[in-house]
Amino acid sequence: MEEEGVDNRAVKRLDSERDPNQKNRQRFGSRSGVLSIEEFFEDQEVPSWRKQLTFRAFFVSFWLSILFSFIVMKLNLTTGIIPSLNVSAGLLGFFFVKSWTKFLERSGLLKQPFTRQENTVIQTCVVASSGIAFSGGFGTYLFGMSERIAHKASGSRDFKDPSLGWMIGFLFVVSFLGLFSVVPLRKIMIIDFKLTYPSGTATAHLINSFHTPRGAALAKKQVRLLGRFFSVSFLWGFFQWFFTSADGCGFSHFPTFGLKAYANKFYFDFSATYIGVGMICPHIINVSVLVGGIISWGIMWPLIEEKKGQWYSEKLRSDDLSGLEGYKVFIAIAIILGDGLYNFFKVLTRTLSGLFDQLQRRRETEDFSTENSSRSELSYDDARRKQLFLKDQIPIWFAIGGYVVIAVVSINTLPHIFPQLKWYYIFVIYIFAPVLAFCNAYGCGLTDWSLASTYGKLAIFTIGAWAGPSRGGIIAGLSACGVMMNIVSTASDLTQDFKTGYLTLASPRSMFVSQVVGTTMGCIISPCVFWLFYKAFDDLGLPTGEYPAPNAVLFRNMSVLGVEGASSLPKNCLTLCYIFFATSILINLIKDLIPKKWARFIPLPMAMAIPFYIGPYFAIDMSLGSLILFVWQKLNRTKAEAFGPAVASGLICGDGIWTLPNSILALAGVKAPICMKFLSRSTNARVDKFLGS
Amino acid sequence: MEEEGVDNRAVKRLDSERDPNQKNRQRFGSRSGVLSIEEFFEDQEVPSWRKQLTFRAFFVSFWLSILFSFIVMKLNLTTGIIPSLNVSAGLLGFFFVKSWTKFLERSGLLKQPFTRQENTVIQTCVVASSGIAFSGGFGTYLFGMSERIAHKASGSRDFKDPSLGWMIGFLFVVSFLGLFSVVPLRKIMIIDFKLTYPSGTATAHLINSFHTPRGAALAKKQVRLLGRFFSVSFLWGFFQWFFTSADGCGFSHFPTFGLKAYANKFYFDFSATYIGVGMICPHIINVSVLVGGIISWGIMWPLIEEKKGQWYSEKLRSDDLSGLEGYKVFIAIAIILGDGLYNFFKVLTRTLSGLFDQLQRRRETEDFSTENSSRSELSYDDARRKQLFLKDQIPIWFAIGGYVVIAVVSINTLPHIFPQLKWYYIFVIYIFAPVLAFCNAYGCGLTDWSLASTYGKLAIFTIGAWAGPSRGGIIAGLSACGVMMNIVSTASDLTQDFKTGYLTLASPRSMFVSQVVGTTMGCIISPCVFWLFYKAFDDLGLPTGEYPAPNAVLFRNMSVLGVEGASSLPKNCLTLCYIFFATSILINLIKDLIPKKWARFIPLPMAMAIPFYIGPYFAIDMSLGSLILFVWQKLNRTKAEAFGPAVASGLICGDGIWTLPNSILALAGVKAPICMKFLSRSTNARVDKFLGS
Repeated sequence: MEEEGVDNRAVKRLDSERDPNQKNRQRFGSRSGVLSIEEFFEDQEVPSWRKQLTFRAFFVSFWLSILFSFIVMKLNLTTGIIPSLNVSAGLLGFFFVKSWTKFLERSGLLKQPFTRQENTVIQTCVVASSGIAFSGGFGTYLFGMSERIAHKASGSRDFKDPSLGWMIGFLFVVSFLGLFSVVPLRKIMIIDFKLTYPSGTATAHLINSFHTPRGAALAKKQVRLLGRFFSVSFLWGFFQWFFTSADGCGFSHFPTFGLKAYANKFYFDFSATYIGVGMICPHIINVSVLVGGIISWGIMWPLIEEKKGQWYSEKLRSDDLSGLEGYKVFIAIAIILGDGLYNFFKVLTRTLSGLFDQLQRRRETEDFSTENSSRSELSYDDARRKQLFLKDQIPIWFAIGGYVVIAVVSINTLPHIFPQLKWYYIFVIYIFAPVLAFCNAYGCGLTDWSLASTYGKLAIFTIGAWAGPSRGGIIAGLSACGVMMNIVSTASDLTQDFKTGYLTLASPRSMFVSQVVGTTMGCIISPCVFWLFYKAFDDLGLPTGEYPAPNAVLFRNMSVLGVEGASSLPKNCLTLCYIFFATSILINLIKDLIPKKWARFIPLPMAMAIPFYIGPYFAIDMSLGSLILFVWQKLNRTKAEAFGPAVASGLICGDGIWTLPNSILALAGVKAPICMKFLSRSTNARVDKFLGS
Repeated sequence: MEEEGVDNRAVKRLDSERDPNQKNRQRFGSRSGVLSIEEFFEDQEVPSWRKQLTFRAFFVSFWLSILFSFIVMKLNLTTGIIPSLNVSAGLLGFFFVKSWTKFLERSGLLKQPFTRQENTVIQTCVVASSGIAFSGGFGTYLFGMSERIAHKASGSRDFKDPSLGWMIGFLFVVSFLGLFSVVPLRKIMIIDFKLTYPSGTATAHLINSFHTPRGAALAKKQVRLLGRFFSVSFLWGFFQWFFTSADGCGFSHFPTFGLKAYANKFYFDFSATYIGVGMICPHIINVSVLVGGIISWGIMWPLIEEKKGQWYSEKLRSDDLSGLEGYKVFIAIAIILGDGLYNFFKVLTRTLSGLFDQLQRRRETEDFSTENSSRSELSYDDARRKQLFLKDQIPIWFAIGGYVVIAVVSINTLPHIFPQLKWYYIFVIYIFAPVLAFCNAYGCGLTDWSLASTYGKLAIFTIGAWAGPSRGGIIAGLSACGVMMNIVSTASDLTQDFKTGYLTLASPRSMFVSQVVGTTMGCIISPCVFWLFYKAFDDLGLPTGEYPAPNAVLFRNMSVLGVEGASSLPKNCLTLCYIFFATSILINLIKDLIPKKWARFIPLPMAMAIPFYIGPYFAIDMSLGSLILFVWQKLNRTKAEAFGPAVASGLICGDGIWTLPNSILALAGVKAPICMKFLSRSTNARVDKFLGS
């Protein structure tokens, strides 16, 4: 999984650094090689690949998929910042199956013990399924096509409103391609290139640790804490609901720092989710969004607003892109594109040079040593892992055949869904896709950073420009983005999973089946969850509402920019965009050039861009989360690192799952009984007079 | 100090049971007598009584007096429940002088080390001073005379509005009498009768423990925690202020359990003070107020309201005593009187039987043993304490002379302040007063329960009936109550102090001087603090406001009842009053008759009566405080007992001192900028329409 717009590498890398299983890793010494993990598990038989695929695993996966689809969807539609939820998925999966088996064990009905391979199957299935909630573009390209967003952005004549039918169809024809493109890469990436895949490795160590007695005891404590904060967060969401009888009511409109600060979107909105996100994201991300919020809403927008009448017409509606809104949207896009491009080239360079090194080293190995001698160099762990990883092969003809069949189906189907997306656009994408998928999976293995959304933006601009304004370039660009993102995102996610499977001795076949099942679930669950949000909340996509879906607006406007050019922008906006585009690249360059001990204090441009559009209120939640973790780390570093992610996951999951009853209540037309309103003193006097009379 | 209306004995007794110094007591073994406290302090010279009275002690006392006057005043005017603040006074006094001496020690200017005698002087001075904030009747008889309360209660033609001049004058002529009446009792109560005075003993042990290295370390931690919660509580009060631009705005009107529950005063009002009070008060008090609130506002008042039109006229204003308000006021009074009378007779019986035993034992001792042999039986501690206690005598002629002079001044002055209070009423009171003062001091020494307000109510009824309605019986009764309460309350408080002094080797002379200084401070500080509240808050005394001053209303209505009889009460009200009066006595009787292990689960009628009038919202705060302490005790009993009172004191003190800037802001006419309002969905729709148009 990956979030749109934020430096995912930093999120995930630091997450794995904070990960409690890091300590387990050191305890088992897999890094130093002194104490072997697999020796520890030696007396446990590895079940056959068919036995790894149990009904209970998929049952638990199904419910966890729904849970995480809700969470990812909520994050998609509020800010687009999605932290790594691997730890919570791992914890919860372990907890549910463990409770289940314990219950069965007591009642004497347990036929098969809970193994780490089964746990990996669950993890893989949930990641595959909830990944679609992100790569399905419900917060980006897919929702960006809708009339509601089109109305907000320019180019409003081209739109395609979401509908359950075509969304599910679309996902089915594009999501499985990535899966098949990964299969042949599997052995190359993991056995031959020995790529690290930090997140996948971290997850594997987490799962391994769960299945040792000491790890299980820690996991139990973590799960208990997660459960406690889950309940608190859920009940808090429920409590807040009662006070939100209409727009502008409730805790999410609490002018914590006064009404003037509130007008500039500086307020604490009491969101448990973003406090949790702040606890999971590294401190620098939280600082970045806060700095970005202060620069934009604290300094720039108020200054630009003073130029009203000079830089843009006074008569415009507040959300007209020719006015202040234009500056917000396009400067954010400029920063995101600058950061994206810089990192695209950076990762590409590293990918190619890494690849070159690998191939050269391989040739040398082939030249100077026999197959046998190289095998004898392997540690016990590696030997055993390699043996099991290579045992259950997936034939290469199956992978290629699958890819071709799905590509043909897809080329024939997609133009029916999006008439603007001609079949030859898709054909071209499918020729380049495996290469890009390989690049992304390789880059991710090296840097832990999936560039899926950058590849998607590439598709928006190229296909959009190819189609041009006269032939519905906007929709063509956005749908091409969807096709591209699904392939490259799935490719990197699933190679991560294979790494996890490799380290937990799960069979590649069972992993593949689990991915197929998970992807199928995701293709159905994610559109349904989005549909629920779409139907339940009328203000979905409105910048003042609870779910502004910022990336949908930004993606659509990128598409418009690519197709129609920058002609309609307000005065000086393009100049400002150039400045911020350049600054974004410059900051990245400085970050890479200066020593690391200073570089870590430099904010990330991509994280700074998000509040430029939606405002800094969520940055305040995240900073609070960061502060809580920081103080906790000062007080007790060990405890904070072991339990911080569990607390954060509890906060995120509880609030996330509250959106389910919340949207059901909204659908059923049940409105909250009370409105908590914040009025200025003078308005309040008027209201009191009105109510009194 | 003592609170009006609530079973003070239970509050104070359990407070001392929870007291961290209880453990110190056991550590030093004063109870078992194995390890002697005074041997521990043997090498420390006891300073002469003049040296115990330092400038710094009175300087610190002055500021603490102001702090505690604010707190007591706030409690007086909100619910009338005042927990024992001895621990916080002790902690803060120790903290300030210790910081001061440490600072001077470092700068080399310290002339005199900080001794426990000096600490006792501070404690005594603060208790004497802030005691006046209670016994001055600003929440009871004195404010009950005002026009504002008279307007609410019946008999509105008799009133005397507060004014700084006469209040200070009144306090000066009545407060010192108690002081002089105590002096001759001192030796009898403490040396001869060896009364326990649980609170005084607890305070002494606290002070003794502070001056041992281990105790000082604990105290340091407690003070740090107190400081932290002080800040949190103060800042929370400050934060709340911003959202309270008008009546009905802000957190104190938060309909936590919905608007219907709010209408029946069931809500959590976010008051840090009453969470702290709940943590200091024993659980049974908190349960009692909650049960009382549920019985009255949850069951009875809604039922009686349904009889509107049958039991009372429909046309009445909501605060008319002939309507629902009458039931609330007079049923509360019935319960308070039932409980008060029961306990008056109970304590009187115990006092007399105790006295009889004492006298008989004394006669036996005189018969069978010489002075020398009885002295030789004393432990080292007792011998040393007795020696120092008897060293600095206060001549008996001085005490009697002082009493007579002040009584003469008082008899001549008071009728000028209250023309309704004839000189012969006062003369009669002053003849009986020393006896009642003795009874109260003795009863308090036995049971830790000051019956001051019960004696005060006795004065209301007797003097009120004597004066009768034609000669301003209401004011006569209330002012007589003041005269009586001041004497008996001071008598018990100051004998407690002497016990503390006895146990910390403080000289009786320095104690006396400290009491005089403290009383003088109190006579000036308390009226000024009340004056600030009175001028700053227009809604003082209104049941819907922030400061409903419930006891002022109840006291005034008692006076009206005593003078004019129960003729104007609404239908069935008198019957209900009889039932509750009898129930109140019955509950007390059951509580005393059944085994203690069951008795501790029976609620206290006096605590139940408070929410009958003002509603259960503060009971919810207190229950929350109780719950927090309960959970804390379950998690870590030792820590909860050592630090619970410090946390509670911090919460109470921080919120209490916030009332100072709050009332200054109100006086200066500075209004908060925002109104946090709670509207029902339909009202909100109307308001939105109004604001939109």
